[in-house]
Amino acid sequence: MSTASAQNIDVRLPDGTTHSHPGDTTAMDVARGISDGLARAVVAAEVDGKIVDSFRPLGEVAGEDGSVSLKLLTSRDSDALDVLRHSAAHVMARAIMRVYDGVSLAFGPTTSGGFYYDFDLSEKISEDDFPKIEAEIKKIIKAKEPFERFVLERDEARKLCDDLDQDLKVEHIDTGLSDQSTVSFYRQGEFVDLCRGPHIPHAGMIKAIKLLSVAGAYWKGDASGRQLQRVYGTAFFDKKELAAYLEQLEEARRRDHRVLGKQHGLFAINPDVGQGLCLWLPKGARVRVALEDFLRKELLSRGYDPVYSPHIGRVELYETSGHFPYYRDSQFAPLFGTEVGGLLDAWSSRLSEGNLSSDDEDKLMAAAEVFGVKLPQYKASAAADAKQKVLHDWQLAHERYLLKPMNCPHHCQIFAAQPRSYRQLPLRLFEFGTVYRHEQTGELNGMMRVRGLTQDDAHIFCTAEQVEEEFRATIDLTKFVLESVGLEDYRVQLSLRDPDSSKYVGSESNWDHAESALRGVLQHSGLDFNEEPGEAAFYGPKADFMVRDCIGRSWQLGTVQLDYNLPQRFKLEYKGSDNATHQPVMIHRAPFGSLERFTGMLVEHFAGAFPMWLSPEQIRVLPLSDKSLDYAVAVAKQFDEAGLKVTVDSHDGKVQAKIRNAQLDLVNYMAVVGPKEAEKGHVALRDRIDGDLGSMPIAEAIARLTDEIKNRTVRQAVGSSSVSIADSGETSHEY
Amino acid sequence: MSTASAQNIDVRLPDGTTHSHPGDTTAMDVARGISDGLARAVVAAEVDGKIVDSFRPLGEVAGEDGSVSLKLLTSRDSDALDVLRHSAAHVMARAIMRVYDGVSLAFGPTTSGGFYYDFDLSEKISEDDFPKIEAEIKKIIKAKEPFERFVLERDEARKLCDDLDQDLKVEHIDTGLSDQSTVSFYRQGEFVDLCRGPHIPHAGMIKAIKLLSVAGAYWKGDASGRQLQRVYGTAFFDKKELAAYLEQLEEARRRDHRVLGKQHGLFAINPDVGQGLCLWLPKGARVRVALEDFLRKELLSRGYDPVYSPHIGRVELYETSGHFPYYRDSQFAPLFGTEVGGLLDAWSSRLSEGNLSSDDEDKLMAAAEVFGVKLPQYKASAAADAKQKVLHDWQLAHERYLLKPMNCPHHCQIFAAQPRSYRQLPLRLFEFGTVYRHEQTGELNGMMRVRGLTQDDAHIFCTAEQVEEEFRATIDLTKFVLESVGLEDYRVQLSLRDPDSSKYVGSESNWDHAESALRGVLQHSGLDFNEEPGEAAFYGPKADFMVRDCIGRSWQLGTVQLDYNLPQRFKLEYKGSDNATHQPVMIHRAPFGSLERFTGMLVEHFAGAFPMWLSPEQIRVLPLSDKSLDYAVAVAKQFDEAGLKVTVDSHDGKVQAKIRNAQLDLVNYMAVVGPKEAEKGHVALRDRIDGDLGSMPIAEAIARLTDEIKNRTVRQAVGSSSVSIADSGETSHEY
Repeated sequence: MSTASAQNIDVRLPDGTTHSHPGDTTAMDVARGISDGLARAVVAAEVDGKIVDSFRPLGEVAGEDGSVSLKLLTSRDSDALDVLRHSAAHVMARAIMRVYDGVSLAFGPTTSGGFYYDFDLSEKISEDDFPKIEAEIKKIIKAKEPFERFVLERDEARKLCDDLDQDLKVEHIDTGLSDQSTVSFYRQGEFVDLCRGPHIPHAGMIKAIKLLSVAGAYWKGDASGRQLQRVYGTAFFDKKELAAYLEQLEEARRRDHRVLGKQHGLFAINPDVGQGLCLWLPKGARVRVALEDFLRKELLSRGYDPVYSPHIGRVELYETSGHFPYYRDSQFAPLFGTEVGGLLDAWSSRLSEGNLSSDDEDKLMAAAEVFGVKLPQYKASAAADAKQKVLHDWQLAHERYLLKPMNCPHHCQIFAAQPRSYRQLPLRLFEFGTVYRHEQTGELNGMMRVRGLTQDDAHIFCTAEQVEEEFRATIDLTKFVLESVGLEDYRVQLSLRDPDSSKYVGSESNWDHAESALRGVLQHSGLDFNEEPGEAAFYGPKADFMVRDCIGRSWQLGTVQLDYNLPQRFKLEYKGSDNATHQPVMIHRAPFGSLERFTGMLVEHFAGAFPMWLSPEQIRVLPLSDKSLDYAVAVAKQFDEAGLKVTVDSHDGKVQAKIRNAQLDLVNYMAVVGPKEAEKGHVALRDRIDGDLGSMPIAEAIARLTDEIKNRTVRQAVGSSSVSIADSGETSHEY
Repeated sequence: MSTASAQNIDVRLPDGTTHSHPGDTTAMDVARGISDGLARAVVAAEVDGKIVDSFRPLGEVAGEDGSVSLKLLTSRDSDALDVLRHSAAHVMARAIMRVYDGVSLAFGPTTSGGFYYDFDLSEKISEDDFPKIEAEIKKIIKAKEPFERFVLERDEARKLCDDLDQDLKVEHIDTGLSDQSTVSFYRQGEFVDLCRGPHIPHAGMIKAIKLLSVAGAYWKGDASGRQLQRVYGTAFFDKKELAAYLEQLEEARRRDHRVLGKQHGLFAINPDVGQGLCLWLPKGARVRVALEDFLRKELLSRGYDPVYSPHIGRVELYETSGHFPYYRDSQFAPLFGTEVGGLLDAWSSRLSEGNLSSDDEDKLMAAAEVFGVKLPQYKASAAADAKQKVLHDWQLAHERYLLKPMNCPHHCQIFAAQPRSYRQLPLRLFEFGTVYRHEQTGELNGMMRVRGLTQDDAHIFCTAEQVEEEFRATIDLTKFVLESVGLEDYRVQLSLRDPDSSKYVGSESNWDHAESALRGVLQHSGLDFNEEPGEAAFYGPKADFMVRDCIGRSWQLGTVQLDYNLPQRFKLEYKGSDNATHQPVMIHRAPFGSLERFTGMLVEHFAGAFPMWLSPEQIRVLPLSDKSLDYAVAVAKQFDEAGLKVTVDSHDGKVQAKIRNAQLDLVNYMAVVGPKEAEKGHVALRDRIDGDLGSMPIAEAIARLTDEIKNRTVRQAVGSSSVSIADSGETSHEY
């Protein structure tokens, strides 16, 4: 990055040719040297793997050896869209500063679906103003003004932001950028922004842009900090892509699991139970029971052992595992075996008996006030055995537990509960384990992002030699699980170690062995996969399934993670065939991830209409009139005895209305019954998707339905859109 | 009690006759009037339903009308044993005071299996001293000294105890008995004890007595109070009964689920996870999976709906239900959404920025010290918006949750989550819901008494008219569940309202209707049941199943409770067929009670040898030698595919050793395989109970085993002893 622009540099192109250019040559210059058309199409450049402005002198970004590897990015390169959207954020900010007064700029990054910019201003930005703002945006784009980059010393930069009345930028230079001697800015007409870039050559490249919504936000995400207004938008190189994306957003809104969840009685959130804590209503619970039953049977047949563990553990357990205090920000506070208030009550009675020192009393009084506990006045000085009792209470008070944020420490203790020999390995412990994490209130989202989640968790303890086979088996299991719910469009991301870092736990040879084993398994599996060096957790490499749903959104589901860390921290061991003790390798894996998020995702994927094997109401019997009610009940009994989830619509009214209701309720099948059916022991079967299937004997209808369940047939959920919008739910959890 | 002894009283006997006697006549006098033999047999007397000394003047205990209803109790009356044991406790205390110096007496009550007495003395009582103590006891019994009762004014009583150096008794007179003007004592030779009585006429009636153990105890159960030594013993009217009881104790010790649980890898308690929190190891978990699967299927087929709810709820939820703060002593302390430490950390940074008052600082510093959090020094005075932030943190800090002690509040919110109509009733919501209660450390006992327990909980919401049918169905379900695990010896205790009390919630007519419905159902069920007026919970009548296990111990299992309280507190309602809103009745019920305690009980009942359908290892394949290992694995695969829990013993060694190990591991069946079996596709089947069953085709063995599972055959657990020792586990939980 430090090569002087004045010196010549060697530019290597993707075709392998190398050309020498003056140091102030830009990627755009190179493009122009090839063709004017290419120059017009260039969005940005990839120089030695890093995305930079196409208008930046290559000498500035070249390595020490004075050479660069250059790739010109056009709208066809996936990285180019991000650059476009970042520039669109600037354009939007500029337009907003034209529409409103006293706008203080915060940050304006891109997201997987577009971009946003956070502003501090006294006026409330309204979506009603969007046309006005978009009109300004149009003007800016039409002007095709170029983006320009310049660099200032910190002091000058601070002064510039101060002159521009950008106090948040000043604060950021003082705090966030305090370790940098120079900072970069981008100018576009009257608009100047402190920014790392890169940007597109000029605003005219933004062919399609749309403002989407306004929301509240906090300066640097601190909920106790300054409140800001966040405007979301999106931008594309092409109007058609924007239209497809908006259609997908609309489709996603129609499928919103929070709306469908309420409408179909799947789950509820109750403020007195707590935000982010799902109550699974009967219909949602039936879906979960089906998922759990399915997976439990599958795991048992694949050699897994069930375990159950409590939902709390002493803080000491998580100190051993390293989850406390490291992750305390995302955990519920520790709880005590005895109540703090109760403890203080006990102290207070001793106080009134004169058994604590007055210094103790002062502390107690203050602490009690903090906890809203009233204490009587203290009387005399402390006696020795009273102090003893205080100590005892202190010990009780320090019996601290955590609501478990992870199941792994418990499973490690189950491994350690019995002496282990190589004959027992691999030991595969599974549990539908509910864990609790104190997500920010603003981040909560229906079943997708919650504070209590049930993982379809398992931990495999095995020898280093068994890693490959266990990894193969978990990949196979995850594929099987995803395909059972009709999710067949996915790829695997294999996260490997950064070869230059020393942060990793576990021996070099174990890592080498494991990484090559994982790669080998994926290569042989025929799965689409990509490697991400440097993305592994510090404790081991991992593989994540990135699944695309029927409207083209991408979800990170099933995860498989190797772990060399916890076996070491818990000092786990087994006796090998050599009679010596060894440390097992641990594998974390969860095909669903969590039942909450997986079910929420399925609700959206199927737009609430579950396939038969997961459906909470598989068939509804509709009597033509009250006269056929008895027969309807008798028919329902037969369906019930065949294990089908059946109901009877006993309301008054026409059968057409009953059919309409059943369709609206997304019941898979309807059995219409009247005197004719009763006479023959038939039902007139209706399929929610295909309509009338004709009259048939009950047994035939049962066979048809039970087959569909047994085969786990998935007939719905075919989407059309292919634009990718990524999942905004949970981030990948590391253990 | 106040009739002067001098006046004549009318004594009514069970045969209906009434005789006039002087007021100082005792029950013993009445007995002597009938026969000397009867007089010798009289243990105590029941006067107007109250048990009193046989040597007490009847005039002292007669009502205002000067008449009494008298029943003479002999060793054949169940209440007599309790009187005998109470006297035995006095005898033991007297003997201990002869053996040790400086014995301070605490309390000496009876238990369901005998009695104990708590002592404070400097010397440690050792079980090695039991023969010495029992020798003194023998002397005391042989002397046949009478028990004498006398009453003192409080001051005199206090002086007497003081003279006797009985400081704990003095304290008890001062505190526990402060509302009584007179107190009673019993004297037996040199031994005088503050005591309510009643007692046997003389020590010679104790025909069989045995000291059992010594344990630690606390004065008045307060763990921070004075530590005492508790000596347990038991006594009977008959040496044979003592022998049978001791044999049962021995049998219970052999069946101890804590020992068997460790030996067979069923469950573990880990100090870092926490006392009273079970880790279900694979084998125990397999038993639990079988129980849960069985009950879930049964409930679904009986019209129950599954639900799932989180393991925490806001304190407000339990304030609504009334569980907080009422039951807070048995609950874990509330936990906060944000950590107290984290809160203080946040405050501390504001403090260092000078945003809190110095008064705030003092409180914070003290509170932080209490919680072991270090704070930096405070700098300046508070600003208005800083106070605003403090307020915000306070609100966060008051987002308080409880680990749920009950599932009912959550289920009430599930009922309330959707509009309800009479068409949906009865609504039966079930969940295997894990709840947490902070039992005293000293009370914890393996899986029997724990801090985390999973209830097979359900709540039925129904109309008043449906109560009878729902009660019938739950009784039927409970019977079915108990009989499925081979528990067929039980009776039902029906707890009804005390007609003289006004503590009950719910209308008079609802109670009348419900009590008579419950009684009617039990009468028609043909079940052995007894009514206990006054034993109902304040919120409704209830029925408990008292189950006797194979060694004669009595367990309180399945419970069914009506509830008029929670529907009212949660303002639950449904729209009736009359279009008006009504309040549903709620029924709590749990056939197992909790999975922890039920499984622990089954371990003891079956002495670890579960019947096939619950067994964690149903069959083990034993190859004659390594040469037959491949065939053994192939056979195991077939058993596995038939859904059987199968293992292969791949160790070296003789088949005799393998059979012995399988017997010791309580595996239900063994399949011995060698070259002969391999050739014919056979197995040599062995039954753990009946031994060799001969060679047969694999399919035949599979059919035999799967039939036994399908029929839930219970072939073991036949006990011999018939002496009742009651369950010392959980007390009946009220909701």
